[in-house]
Formats: sequence, C-alpha cells, structure tokens
Amino acid sequence: MKLEKVLIVDPIKGEFTGDVEIEGKKITKVSVKDYYSYDNIVMPGFVDVHTHGQKGINVMDASSEDFKKWAENNFSYGVTSFIPSTVSASKDQILKVLENSKDVGLSIEGIHLEGPFISLEKKGAQNPQYIRKPTIEELEEIITEQVKLITMAPEVENFFDVIDYLKEKNVVISLGHTNADFNLFKKAFQSGINRITHFSNALTPLHHRNIGGTGSALYLDFHLEMICDGIHLSREFVDLTYQIKGSDKIILITDSFEGAALEDGHYKLGGLDVTVKDAKAFLADGTIASSTLVFNEGVKNFKKFTNCSLQELAKVSSYNALRNLNILNKGRIETGYVANLVILDKNLDLVQTIFEGRRVF
Amino acid sequence: MKLEKVLIVDPIKGEFTGDVEIEGKKITKVSVKDYYSYDNIVMPGFVDVHTHGQKGINVMDASSEDFKKWAENNFSYGVTSFIPSTVSASKDQILKVLENSKDVGLSIEGIHLEGPFISLEKKGAQNPQYIRKPTIEELEEIITEQVKLITMAPEVENFFDVIDYLKEKNVVISLGHTNADFNLFKKAFQSGINRITHFSNALTPLHHRNIGGTGSALYLDFHLEMICDGIHLSREFVDLTYQIKGSDKIILITDSFEGAALEDGHYKLGGLDVTVKDAKAFLADGTIASSTLVFNEGVKNFKKFTNCSLQELAKVSSYNALRNLNILNKGRIETGYVANLVILDKNLDLVQTIFEGRRVF
Repeated sequence: MKLEKVLIVDPIKGEFTGDVEIEGKKITKVSVKDYYSYDNIVMPGFVDVHTHGQKGINVMDASSEDFKKWAENNFSYGVTSFIPSTVSASKDQILKVLENSKDVGLSIEGIHLEGPFISLEKKGAQNPQYIRKPTIEELEEIITEQVKLITMAPEVENFFDVIDYLKEKNVVISLGHTNADFNLFKKAFQSGINRITHFSNALTPLHHRNIGGTGSALYLDFHLEMICDGIHLSREFVDLTYQIKGSDKIILITDSFEGAALEDGHYKLGGLDVTVKDAKAFLADGTIASSTLVFNEGVKNFKKFTNCSLQELAKVSSYNALRNLNILNKGRIETGYVANLVILDKNLDLVQTIFEGRRVF
Repeated sequence: MKLEKVLIVDPIKGEFTGDVEIEGKKITKVSVKDYYSYDNIVMPGFVDVHTHGQKGINVMDASSEDFKKWAENNFSYGVTSFIPSTVSASKDQILKVLENSKDVGLSIEGIHLEGPFISLEKKGAQNPQYIRKPTIEELEEIITEQVKLITMAPEVENFFDVIDYLKEKNVVISLGHTNADFNLFKKAFQSGINRITHFSNALTPLHHRNIGGTGSALYLDFHLEMICDGIHLSREFVDLTYQIKGSDKIILITDSFEGAALEDGHYKLGGLDVTVKDAKAFLADGTIASSTLVFNEGVKNFKKFTNCSLQELAKVSSYNALRNLNILNKGRIETGYVANLVILDKNLDLVQTIFEGRRVF
C-alpha cells in the first residue's frame, strides 16, 4: 500500500509532504517530497487509554464478542490502540473483565483498572461500595499481564507498600480520584509515579496556600490525561494547561461509557444510573459521570481550544500515551513502525483508518 | 559618589561587574569592568505599590509627619518608591489621607485606593460598611493627581462606565477583591486593564469548568501583585506562578499594615481589630488581614522560592511596578536614571540604600 501526496505528521520529525509505503503490518518507507499541495493528512492512529465503553458496550459486562465489536467501532473514530478501563468493582467482576478481554487482540493493548483503590471523598461517579484498600493478596490475583495501567489514590492505606509490586509487574500507576495534598503528590512523584488520571477531575483544587492535586499536577513533571469534550474541562482550562505543561505532557482520553455514540437516554455505569442529556452524562445528584466523547472529536476539540500544531496534536493523541505505557513500536510515521495510521482531511475529519497495514475504516 | 567593584544588576542589561558613578540625584556613568570578584550587589531600589502602613503608622490616620517617618523607615528595607494604600473607607476619610500625604514628597509616588469599589463577597479584611459602587460624582472628588492606582472589582455596578474616566486621569486600574468569573475578567482585560491585586487572594479559584479569577490571571496577559511572606501564598504557589507567568509579569508587594516591623499584638486595620501572632495578621474570624512583611524580606523569599536570577529579581522588586505605573526614569542602573539604589551583600541582606543620590540607610 502506498499513500501518496499526503501531509505526513510525525510527533518527532514534524510535518512534511511526501509518500508513505506500507508492506504487511509495517511502514516500510517514508519519502519526503516537496509537493506544492496535498490532499490529506496522515497521522499516527489515535490511542485511548481511558475508556469504559461505547455504543451500548459496557466494559464491566462485555463479552469477548463485545470487546471485538468495541475495537471495530473504535476504528471509525480513528482509534488503533485502546485500553478498556474498569471501574471500582468486586474482585470477581474485575476477573471477569480480564477473562472476557483476554484473547481479543485487535487494537486492545491491555486493561486499565480505574479503582477500586481510590478515595471515597473523591469517588466521582465510582460506586462507593467497592472502594477499598489494596493488598498484595488481591493484587496477586487481579494483576495479570493484561493490566497495563492502574488509577490509585496515594492516601489509601497500603499505597506506598504496593507500588514496588506494581512496578515489578510493569503496571503504570496513575494518580486519580484522590484527596491528596501537595506533600503527598510530591512523595508519590518522588517514588517514580509520573501520571495523573483525567486532570483535573476528582482532584483537590489549586489553592494559593496549598496547591493541592490540581496545582501539583501543573507544578511537578506529571503527564496529564485530559478529556476534551468541552464539558469536563472548559476550553480555557484546556488551553491554560497546554500553555503550562506543553504538548509533551498531555494525553488525550475519552473516558467514554456505553452511552457514547448513542442518543440521549438512560444508561448504567458500574451499577449506577446515568442520564445522558445534550451529550452530557451525569448521576442523579448531578455529578458528571464518564463521557459520551468519541476520540476523533476530542482531537478536533484540542486543536480548536489550543491552536496547537499538528505535530503537537500527534503527540497528545497517540505518541505520549504509547510512550508512557512503554509501547515503543507504534505512534510514529517512520520506517519499521507498525502501520497504525489515520488519514484526515484538512478539517481533521476522519477519512480512513489503517490498522496493522489494513484499511479498517 | 562612586560605587566600585560591585555586581551591577540591571533589569534589562542583566548582571555584570563594574562601577557606578552618581552626581546629584542621577546615575552619571555605569562602567563594565571584568572584576574577578566583587564585594556587594547593586540593584535598583525596591518599589512597594501596595502597603497600608508599618511600625505603628496606619495610612488611614497618618499625619503628614507620619508619612515622612514611613518613607524614612522604608529606606531601612530598601524601598525607594512606595504608594501608600488606603482601605475601603468613607469619602471624607479618603480625602483626609490625600490631604495629609500631599506634600510629603520623599519616596512617596502617589496613593493606591484599594477599595471601596469592590465585591462584598470577596471583601477579605476590608470593612464591609464602606464598600459601595463608584459614581463619577464621587470620583471627581477623590481622584486627585496623587491617585496612581485603584483596586476595583469588575462586577460592581458602574465599573465599565467609569473606567474611561479613570484612564483619562492616568489612574491604573487593578482587579481585586472580586467574585468575577472568566468572562468578566476577559471583558475587563479587553477594556485595557492589565493588572491584578494581591494574586490570588480575594479572587475566585481556578476550576476546570470555569477558570475563575485565579485562572484568568494566569491565562490572560495580566501583571500580578504577589505577597511573598510565605503566609499569603505557599512557596510552591509562588514558584508555579513564576514558572507560568515569568518574571516580567510579577510585581512584589508587602500589603503591610501598622503591625509590620513590630511585635505580635493587637492592632487596627480600616476600623477592624487585627491580631498578629507569629508574624501572621488576622481578623477575629481567622481571615488573613494585611501582612507584617517588610519589603526586603519579600525579595529574599521570592529568590528562595523560585531560584530566579538576580536580573529577574530586579524586575519583580522594582522595574515591573514602575513601568506598570508609567514611571520611566527609575528602576534601572543606567546613565541618566534617578540614583535610587540598594546595596546588598551576597546573602541579599541590605547593606545600604541610596535615594536620589544620597545614602539614606
């Protein structure tokens, strides 16, 4: 396969016109050619490391077939790698998700456990009945090779006792749903944790006498997940964060749930009732619950909110998430990399998705 | 007078060793000489544009003699320009301050009216009984040539109707003690206002769905007053703000009151009772009230909190405040500028103050 006369956007080498050749699952040649114009934009396929479901599929009760459908749906939003994300649940429920997603393959890179080892005070839309402290005994059961990412609160009992175990298992720890103050964030950062879940939702606010979770995320060298649906974060908040942190430290996510890409209505999330109205998902008490965002819309929003370059957009939509999870053979448009690509028009609307060298959308 | 073998710190040209020659009130020659070592550091004299009193002197009932003493005291903290600042008070009380400070001269550059046209909800330690909306009639009485700066809340009635009048009178408007959200800050910014009073005290917090006064101050191109006593703002907050805004946008102030440079005890501020304990001043309900900071300590704190360069320190302690008030003949170590200087040792402790070419401390 050869993509000719395109604008190539690589997160490292930047933007240039040329051709991309693909053989089998890999990119075999990238030619820089000084075209006067181009038809489409080629970027690395999008990566969503925080998503609970989509189009009627709910991670917590998805069958193997559902996971497969989810991956296929995701191609239509440009997503070529994703990490289904659980919510706080019983051990058995988590084990069921791991079992059902085990041999699906496709674009599923692993599982993200968002909870259950989080703060009750900052539970957001997580079901409080399942929130608990981590123990090595439970981790030995639920931390299989599939688990790539876990969101935890540093103030939960045992937190600092289990992080070495998680590192040994190559699980990346992300701080989230936490009431921790600056000192605790600093301690966690100094323990090697460099990541914050859906900034700055479910974190303590920036205060001028204690900068809190929000301030710590901005002040220390953390990578930040961000939901750019225009609901969770205001346009100015996204732009301010981009100006402060730069494009190397932001990881776009959807945090979507089964109601995403469907009509307004009533849905479920971790056993809780969720209403979707005007694309906004919330619990009965008004708490924002997950999102209805699809990935390519989040990418367009980020570009609109920040006026970043396309090179930067390739970082926040793909490269940063992959590197943070130590996935090194994807996320670039360069010889030898896996041919996971999106082809966009000049409005950044999705034209094609290429997954492992195959046109899948 | 000649200052020899010193490290000269100019906010524009940077840091270099050399000699400074002074004749009359002015700097007449600055010689760059490549000395292997130097004894002391010469910086522009400090500028405090927000201070309510000091050492038993309270701006609201200070006599002409008190204002003179205040200026002389201030030399011992390196301050060679300052703007006594009123608090919310009756028209007659404000007129009395203007009258008593009128012909003092020395380092008094004018008067800062902090209130009374501010938000009741964000009054801080301002006396609510005097808070009101501005009218052209009142402004015609209280805006004399002495008034250089006024702190106002953009949500008070008539705010946008009086800003042209204030600009005509060359009064710089600073936003403060305000409940305004991003949209109102943006509107005020677009009206030409570029300054925030004692950031981020008495502003709405940064929230991820409305960035508030705190976020607006960081996001838009405002200059920010900051009280670096280690009490009003945490060390990390100061450093984060410095990293975001840079040294061109920060103006150090003391916001001090009559209890500054005195023992712990009971004092008054705008008719309210203030207790000072461990150098922290507060009202009966615990609200932080003014400060006990002296300027050179704030300068040392800023250096310690941020690890900024000396050139940057000259900006935040002198140059930025002067330029913001359109005072163009002070704040640099350069031929032709007024010889207002501080001589510091290598620990930044004050050794001498030179005011208009005279050793005054």
